[in-house]
Amino acid sequence: MSTRTARQDAPSTKKGRATRDRIIAAAADLMYRHGAAGTSTPALRDVAGVSSSQIYHYFADKDDLTRAVIAYQTEAILANQAPLLARLDSLDALKAWRDVVVDAARQYGGTGGCPLGSLSSELSDHDPQARDALAASFTAWATVIREGLLGMLANGSLRPQTDADQLALALLAAVQGGLLLAQAQHTTDALEAAIDTVIAHIHDQATAR
Amino acid sequence: MSTRTARQDAPSTKKGRATRDRIIAAAADLMYRHGAAGTSTPALRDVAGVSSSQIYHYFADKDDLTRAVIAYQTEAILANQAPLLARLDSLDALKAWRDVVVDAARQYGGTGGCPLGSLSSELSDHDPQARDALAASFTAWATVIREGLLGMLANGSLRPQTDADQLALALLAAVQGGLLLAQAQHTTDALEAAIDTVIAHIHDQATAR
Repeated sequence: MSTRTARQDAPSTKKGRATRDRIIAAAADLMYRHGAAGTSTPALRDVAGVSSSQIYHYFADKDDLTRAVIAYQTEAILANQAPLLARLDSLDALKAWRDVVVDAARQYGGTGGCPLGSLSSELSDHDPQARDALAASFTAWATVIREGLLGMLANGSLRPQTDADQLALALLAAVQGGLLLAQAQHTTDALEAAIDTVIAHIHDQATAR
Repeated sequence: MSTRTARQDAPSTKKGRATRDRIIAAAADLMYRHGAAGTSTPALRDVAGVSSSQIYHYFADKDDLTRAVIAYQTEAILANQAPLLARLDSLDALKAWRDVVVDAARQYGGTGGCPLGSLSSELSDHDPQARDALAASFTAWATVIREGLLGMLANGSLRPQTDADQLALALLAAVQGGLLLAQAQHTTDALEAAIDTVIAHIHDQATAR
C-alpha cells in the first residue's frame, strides 16, 4: 500500500457499509486468534468472502484496518459492559459485572485473553497509532467503570472520600492481568482473586457494612 | 530443524556454557523487544555474535530456545524480587517491593511490559509447551509472593484468616494488568492504582492499624 492515510469516511451505501463491517468482523476474529501480524490478506479474503481490492477499497492499509478492529472490539466490550456499569448502584451490581467478566473468560477456559489486551501487548511498542487507539480504548473502558463507581458515590453507597479514578483503574488492571494469567494458566483463579480483592476493598469503603 | 527434543544437558565446558548463556541473553533481549515471532536466527546470530550452527548445537529448535528464554526471564524476575519478598514482614516491606516494580516500569516509560506477560500473550494460545512453561513461571512468581505474605501471617502482622493464596494471585494479576496498561498508556497510573488497592486491602487485614 502506498498510502497510510486512514479512510475515515463511512461508505455511503448500505451494501458498502455491510461489506466494510464484514471485513472488520472477520479481521477482528482473525487478529484475536492469530494476532495482527499473524493475520494475512489471503486469510482475511477467505474468511470475509471478499477480494483484496475490496479490502483495500475500504482500508488504506493494514494499520488502518487494525485501528478499525480496535474500535470494533472497544465498541463490543463497552456494549457488553456499559449497561451493567451504567446501573452500578450497589455492591451487588458490581458483583454482577464481575460475574459477566469471569463467566466470559471461563467459557473459553481462559484462552484468547482480552481482545484489546492482546493487541496492546503485540502492538503498543511498535505501532504508535495503534498504541494511541488502544490507550484511548482503555481510557474509555476505565471511564465507564469510573462512572459506575461515581453512581455508587452519588447514591451514598460509598464513602465520599472514595477515589473512583483509582478504583476504576485498579478494576481494569485486575481484568487485564487476570485475563492474561488465565491464558497461560487455563483457570480464572487469578482473574477472580484480582477482581474480588478490589471489590473487597470497595466493600470496606461502603457506608453500609 | 528436524527434532523438537529439548537439549537439556548443560554444556560440559565453561566456554560452552558461556556461549549458551550468551545466546539465551541475546534471544531474551530480542524477544522482549520484537516478540518470539519477530526474533529471527540471523538477528540472533548478529546480536549474540555466534553462528547458526552454534545456536542449533545448543538448542534443538526455536521452541527449545523460547523455553530457555522463559526460564531465563523467570530467574531474572525472581532473583530481583525474591530477596525483597523473602523478608516481607511488614506492610512497609510490601511497599518496598511495590516501589521496585513501579520504578522498573517507570524507568522505561511503561514500554516493554513484563517479559513473561508479553511472551504469554503471544504464545499461550498457540504453543502448549511454552504455555506450560509460562504457567509454571507465573505459579513460581505467585508462590514467592505468597511466601512473603505467609511470613507476615507467621509474625502476626496479618490476621490469621487472611487468604495468602488469593492475595498473592491478586498482586500478580495487578502487576501483569498494570504493566500491560502501562505499555499502551505510557504511564504507571494503572499499575500503581492496582497494586496500591490490593495493598490497601491487605492493610485492612493487618492486625496493627
